[in-house]
Amino acid sequence: MPTPIAEITVRIEFSAAHRLHAKELSDEENAALYGPCNNPNSHGHNYDLFVTVRGPIDPVTGMVMNLNDLHRIVQERIFSVVDHKHLDDDLDVLGGRVSTAENLAVAFWEILAPEVQAFGPELSLIRIHESRANIVEYRGAQQ
Amino acid sequence: MPTPIAEITVRIEFSAAHRLHAKELSDEENAALYGPCNNPNSHGHNYDLFVTVRGPIDPVTGMVMNLNDLHRIVQERIFSVVDHKHLDDDLDVLGGRVSTAENLAVAFWEILAPEVQAFGPELSLIRIHESRANIVEYRGAQQ
Amino acid sequence: MPTPIAEITVRIEFSAAHRLHAKELSDEENAALYGPCNNPNSHGHNYDLFVTVRGPIDPVTGMVMNLNDLHRIVQERIFSVVDHKHLDDDLDVLGGRVSTAENLAVAFWEILAPEVQAFGPELSLIRIHESRANIVEYRGAQQ
Amino acid sequence: MPTPIAEITVRIEFSAAHRLHAKELSDEENAALYGPCNNPNSHGHNYDLFVTVRGPIDPVTGMVMNLNDLHRIVQERIFSVVDHKHLDDDLDVLGGRVSTAENLAVAFWEILAPEVQAFGPELSLIRIHESRANIVEYRGAQQ
Amino acid sequence: MPTPIAEITVRIEFSAAHRLHAKELSDEENAALYGPCNNPNSHGHNYDLFVTVRGPIDPVTGMVMNLNDLHRIVQERIFSVVDHKHLDDDLDVLGGRVSTAENLAVAFWEILAPEVQAFGPELSLIRIHESRANIVEYRGAQQ
Amino acid sequence: MPTPIAEITVRIEFSAAHRLHAKELSDEENAALYGPCNNPNSHGHNYDLFVTVRGPIDPVTGMVMNLNDLHRIVQERIFSVVDHKHLDDDLDVLGGRVSTAENLAVAFWEILAPEVQAFGPELSLIRIHESRANIVEYRGAQQ
Repeated sequence: MPTPIAEITVRIEFSAAHRLHAKELSDEENAALYGPCNNPNSHGHNYDLFVTVRGPIDPVTGMVMNLNDLHRIVQERIFSVVDHKHLDDDLDVLGGRVSTAENLAVAFWEILAPEVQAFGPELSLIRIHESRANIVEYRGAQQ
Repeated sequence: MPTPIAEITVRIEFSAAHRLHAKELSDEENAALYGPCNNPNSHGHNYDLFVTVRGPIDPVTGMVMNLNDLHRIVQERIFSVVDHKHLDDDLDVLGGRVSTAENLAVAFWEILAPEVQAFGPELSLIRIHESRANIVEYRGAQQ
Repeated sequence: MPTPIAEITVRIEFSAAHRLHAKELSDEENAALYGPCNNPNSHGHNYDLFVTVRGPIDPVTGMVMNLNDLHRIVQERIFSVVDHKHLDDDLDVLGGRVSTAENLAVAFWEILAPEVQAFGPELSLIRIHESRANIVEYRGAQQ
Repeated sequence: MPTPIAEITVRIEFSAAHRLHAKELSDEENAALYGPCNNPNSHGHNYDLFVTVRGPIDPVTGMVMNLNDLHRIVQERIFSVVDHKHLDDDLDVLGGRVSTAENLAVAFWEILAPEVQAFGPELSLIRIHESRANIVEYRGAQQ
Repeated sequence: MPTPIAEITVRIEFSAAHRLHAKELSDEENAALYGPCNNPNSHGHNYDLFVTVRGPIDPVTGMVMNLNDLHRIVQERIFSVVDHKHLDDDLDVLGGRVSTAENLAVAFWEILAPEVQAFGPELSLIRIHESRANIVEYRGAQQ
Repeated sequence: MPTPIAEITVRIEFSAAHRLHAKELSDEENAALYGPCNNPNSHGHNYDLFVTVRGPIDPVTGMVMNLNDLHRIVQERIFSVVDHKHLDDDLDVLGGRVSTAENLAVAFWEILAPEVQAFGPELSLIRIHESRANIVEYRGAQQ
């Protein structure tokens, strides 16, 4: 049998404030576009983040990538940066982009893809649950 | 960087009754095929519905599609039709097909795909959890 | 140390149809009172049932009651009666009462309390989640 | 049988920003006391709120209280006030108290107890899940 | 208003192996009593542990007890002892008692009650979910 | 319309003990590689297993595959083999491979793929949640 390819996913929860407000738009346009998410004093979420990595299962260790390494990377590069922070006022990672879950997913991908690749496998999915009812997925630029 | 492509998902829960019974089959065949799901007086579920849309992230708004629009479409075209209803006796959307979660997913796809496309992105997945143990996914005819 | 008193809970999920309709009220009153839950063709739920038993922890076995016995009782006396059934049309246990979760909880209590007591401990709580947003609890008449 | 007493619970989720900062304490004391929850630019949560009401089951309707009324009260008096808001900067309900989940629960109790009592039953529990790992419960002053 | 009394709960998940086997009973009696839980080579669970503390809400801090302290105590005294361990072969805390969730709850109570009391409030509940279907609660000897 | 292709998923939970230990590595290498998962006396999990099958929806029955058949196969070939067992000491299915969730997923695929194919559709995904934070997915060798 050829080496099987599998995906492993780690999950973390972080709590953050944010406000959806596009700097290219007027206040009225922002209020109409984002509705309550444009509240001037911000609101917040418990974000549920899933990071998925894809690669061959090592025949000796039985692992796509050491889960301890993957948890450490996500902890150091994402959790410690975003947890208990204001996504618009405290972070650089969004580079001025609106703090939608879509843009967060792309920003996290840019941070994590090279970190994961240094261990061999490929980052394959960033999934963010902003609430029980809203989910975003990003699979990188090659998609 | 080219415009990133992402997926957004909204989730709603609805409660409905139904009975699995194929009109092409005899009563005995239906009872054997569907087991308790063929109970003549019906049974029911809390259905957990996930609707996923795929498209480029707008560089100004940071959104694949306005979540408020997507929630409104699913509310108006699905939830208001199926919630607190009998899927076989109260609905037209199944067009006489058996009310399996597979057929429900296809029916919801047919309703939602043109609605979503009118906003630009593509409907990419209908996922229905009929119970904690049974899930159905449908990705459209092009699959 | 005196023998410690603890509570053990088993959980099962069942799927059923029902209609809220009080026979003492007119059709108009029922429609106004129960809203969509009065839909003539019924609707349904996945009910999440928790049965809690209270008693001393046996110093030899370390158990309040054998979980296998408790699961068997709930399976035989509740699950096999209500799963994939219509609560109003298929059951006797409600005795003509409206199939609210409150009345269901009382009916389940009446069935399970003597069964549990035959093993020594006391039934202490029936909890029913009718949906993610609606929960009922009943602790018996002595409350 | 005497009229059985039961409890019904409704559950809603709201998203809000907040900052833990006691006005009676210095900045250093606040930072030491609350740690990351004292972040000057705030953070946020999806709060999961459970409101429990206790009373006799009406023998005609089979209900402790009409769930539609209870959902409406919680929607109007709590959800519409706190959802997509900053708990410290946008609300009056905390009356200057620190926005811990404990103080939120007491504030919600003060708002909801008379509303529920006007329908007959008693408010019996406010439960707030601030995150998957932190929960607060309040049963009123009579406790 | 008198100082309100509230309860706060922290939740942690740990993974452990165990085997139910009472030393006072024969092998045959153990097999009959515990069924598959008596498997000689052990089985295991992800245990979901909830620790609840009760006390007055401090009028300055708005807290029953500092959540950071409570998380630290549970982490140091419980999680670091039981996570990724065999409950029968690696631990002293059960003192030779069978590793039922009932006995675990009592053992955790004995460890945590004095730790919590040193901060002022009272430990009021240990709740352990051994699986999705089995839950144990213990409220101390005074119950 | 051509026959729609859909996926159905069944989910079961099983409880097992295991130890991560690669026989090709020294004790020190194993301890460094797997950390607490290498605990000599083992640890354990409640594994949440999702089995997904893909195929055309039968126009008469409305099903990709009879869910009762799929549940029975997973029950007989997986659950009855692994539940309340030690994955390393009680099973043959891993064939000496380390009991990582990656290797478990491949082993379950090898067992289930021909069973599913005998009914017509194709096995398309094995997903295993080892804990709330760790997930593995395997889509077969053709991936």
